[in-house]
Amino acid sequence: MATPSPFESAPLSTVTLAVDCMGGDFGPSVTLPACEAFLARHERAALVLVGKPEALSNFSHPRCRVVTASEVVGMDDPVEVALRRKKDSSMRVAIAQVKDGAAQAAVSAGNTGALMAIARYLLKTMDGIDRPAIAPQLPNMKGGATTVLDLGANVDCDAEDLLQFAVLGSALVSALTGNESPSVGLLNIGEEAIKGSETIKKASQLLREAGQSQDLNFYGNVEGNDIFKGTTEIVVCDGFVGNVALKASEGVASMISGYMRQEFSRNLLTKLAGILAYPVLSALKKRLDHRRYNGAALLGLRGLVFKSHGSADALAFGYALDRAYDAARNNLLERVRARIAHAAPLLGRADADAQTEVTALQD
Amino acid sequence: MATPSPFESAPLSTVTLAVDCMGGDFGPSVTLPACEAFLARHERAALVLVGKPEALSNFSHPRCRVVTASEVVGMDDPVEVALRRKKDSSMRVAIAQVKDGAAQAAVSAGNTGALMAIARYLLKTMDGIDRPAIAPQLPNMKGGATTVLDLGANVDCDAEDLLQFAVLGSALVSALTGNESPSVGLLNIGEEAIKGSETIKKASQLLREAGQSQDLNFYGNVEGNDIFKGTTEIVVCDGFVGNVALKASEGVASMISGYMRQEFSRNLLTKLAGILAYPVLSALKKRLDHRRYNGAALLGLRGLVFKSHGSADALAFGYALDRAYDAARNNLLERVRARIAHAAPLLGRADADAQTEVTALQD
Repeated sequence: MATPSPFESAPLSTVTLAVDCMGGDFGPSVTLPACEAFLARHERAALVLVGKPEALSNFSHPRCRVVTASEVVGMDDPVEVALRRKKDSSMRVAIAQVKDGAAQAAVSAGNTGALMAIARYLLKTMDGIDRPAIAPQLPNMKGGATTVLDLGANVDCDAEDLLQFAVLGSALVSALTGNESPSVGLLNIGEEAIKGSETIKKASQLLREAGQSQDLNFYGNVEGNDIFKGTTEIVVCDGFVGNVALKASEGVASMISGYMRQEFSRNLLTKLAGILAYPVLSALKKRLDHRRYNGAALLGLRGLVFKSHGSADALAFGYALDRAYDAARNNLLERVRARIAHAAPLLGRADADAQTEVTALQD
Repeated sequence: MATPSPFESAPLSTVTLAVDCMGGDFGPSVTLPACEAFLARHERAALVLVGKPEALSNFSHPRCRVVTASEVVGMDDPVEVALRRKKDSSMRVAIAQVKDGAAQAAVSAGNTGALMAIARYLLKTMDGIDRPAIAPQLPNMKGGATTVLDLGANVDCDAEDLLQFAVLGSALVSALTGNESPSVGLLNIGEEAIKGSETIKKASQLLREAGQSQDLNFYGNVEGNDIFKGTTEIVVCDGFVGNVALKASEGVASMISGYMRQEFSRNLLTKLAGILAYPVLSALKKRLDHRRYNGAALLGLRGLVFKSHGSADALAFGYALDRAYDAARNNLLERVRARIAHAAPLLGRADADAQTEVTALQD
């Protein structure tokens, strides 16, 4: 399937990303312009573009090669269909590039459930990790980003899962920011009377132990608002809670911007005020632009995969590519392995379970 | 303890609220001005002011009487202290007024855990309800409010609890808005692959059954952003998820308003733009003013109790008083009883458990 290109003689330190060009709501019309801009930004980067031949035929670049795939995973395809029926999908072929060592990370804007299932099936879970997690970054008041995991991949988590998320998140943040000891908060609720469920209490204990043994920089419990305050670099929670917190936050942000539009377009005077305030409002919009935070890592697998929002435009998809690139060139995978090895006594239990689950998936 | 006042000869249709004047971060300096304004707004309302005699000595009004209490529950008091050691607290004496029939609802800005525990101990849980819930209202894009429960009282909920929350929330919304068939959404996550935990799947089934038997207007699953879209009038979830969603939403709103302040105060030009846009920005601020949504109902008890934010100012505390007043004059308690009776076949299991728990609390 592969078309050889000059890229193959590139020096070893080149980082290559495999891009599922068909994924997302807009497919190649978004992914290809983003890839072109990405290559222009990063002189040492190379890409493997994966997709239907007719969609990619007009694109060529010296640091780019095309690998064709005959199928596309639809945004609404059930996991089973994506995993078992579409074995030549662009999503799967892109992830296979990572498995085969032809790329250091894969990026897709396709359906999250399918992406996680295929990535897990092809790449397998790392030793010491029960469940891979999805870790996006959210903006915070300190002007940085808070990494939150899990964001929807794991619905019922136990305390050990939350500890593993903390280890995975720490590796990700250290690879992306260079901070080798990022702080971790455990998402909890604040009422005196009700300090969280049994799972949270146990997770808090495990994280405290990990903190004492210096495997983690555990801050303690945090609340929902701390995600946006930036109290800690990393916030761990189960996938259900994380997903609800993320969507609720998006809901509030939409409501506020909707209200702003309404108030500024109420009459001639308010419209004039809007024009005069335009530079300020557009600076505000830029700071809140969620596209800058696009690109969530799938962590805990034996290979790097990044998920872009399905509705990403070329700018947003470019941020996901950049994030994957940074993670790959800063050896995220090695960092994860090292942190897991270091925390092994605390994570001990995970190994057997993980293998059972992978076997179940293969059936 | 009670000081008789002319109010006692008021006609039967008068609604009387018992106010814990000492609760909250500011105590009487906030609660008393709010009470005065409340009495001016509602000609048929009466108040029982509960607090330390010296704090209330300067307040008098023909529709007001004072009941003294020698203790105050601190904002950080553990539940056990509030419940067992401070038996003459203003919070407890206010709730006792409801139990004794001297008031139709109690309002407190005191510590939530203590308020729930004391309310539950004194008033008991209704037949058919396992766990009382806390139900605040949040603003939505439709310009109305979405009632979300539970918001922190119950951390680990099962499917039956979520069904009960739906019944309680429906009674509350019908009492506050007159809409006798408010729609109920079950908070879930949207990914195809992972449609929520086992509890959520079972709750969805129970709610669907209740919807078919016309006990409830069940809309289906909703996601975090639907709270602020106003997709349904009521959103049910467990207390942990609800609390995180609420706090995360508050965090985003604070971040956005912090950014706005920063952008408008960046330099002389942006400050000028801020002055010109002032009427618009202040209209926006008013629409987003969380004080208007202050006053969360404690539902599922044999008496009405409303919780104000601890940090409420007089305006916010007034909204909590208004909400309690509306609930009481529209017979919320009767509405809850009627809905529980109607849904009894689905709620059947609850009775025995509830009694066990109340007994345990009394020990």
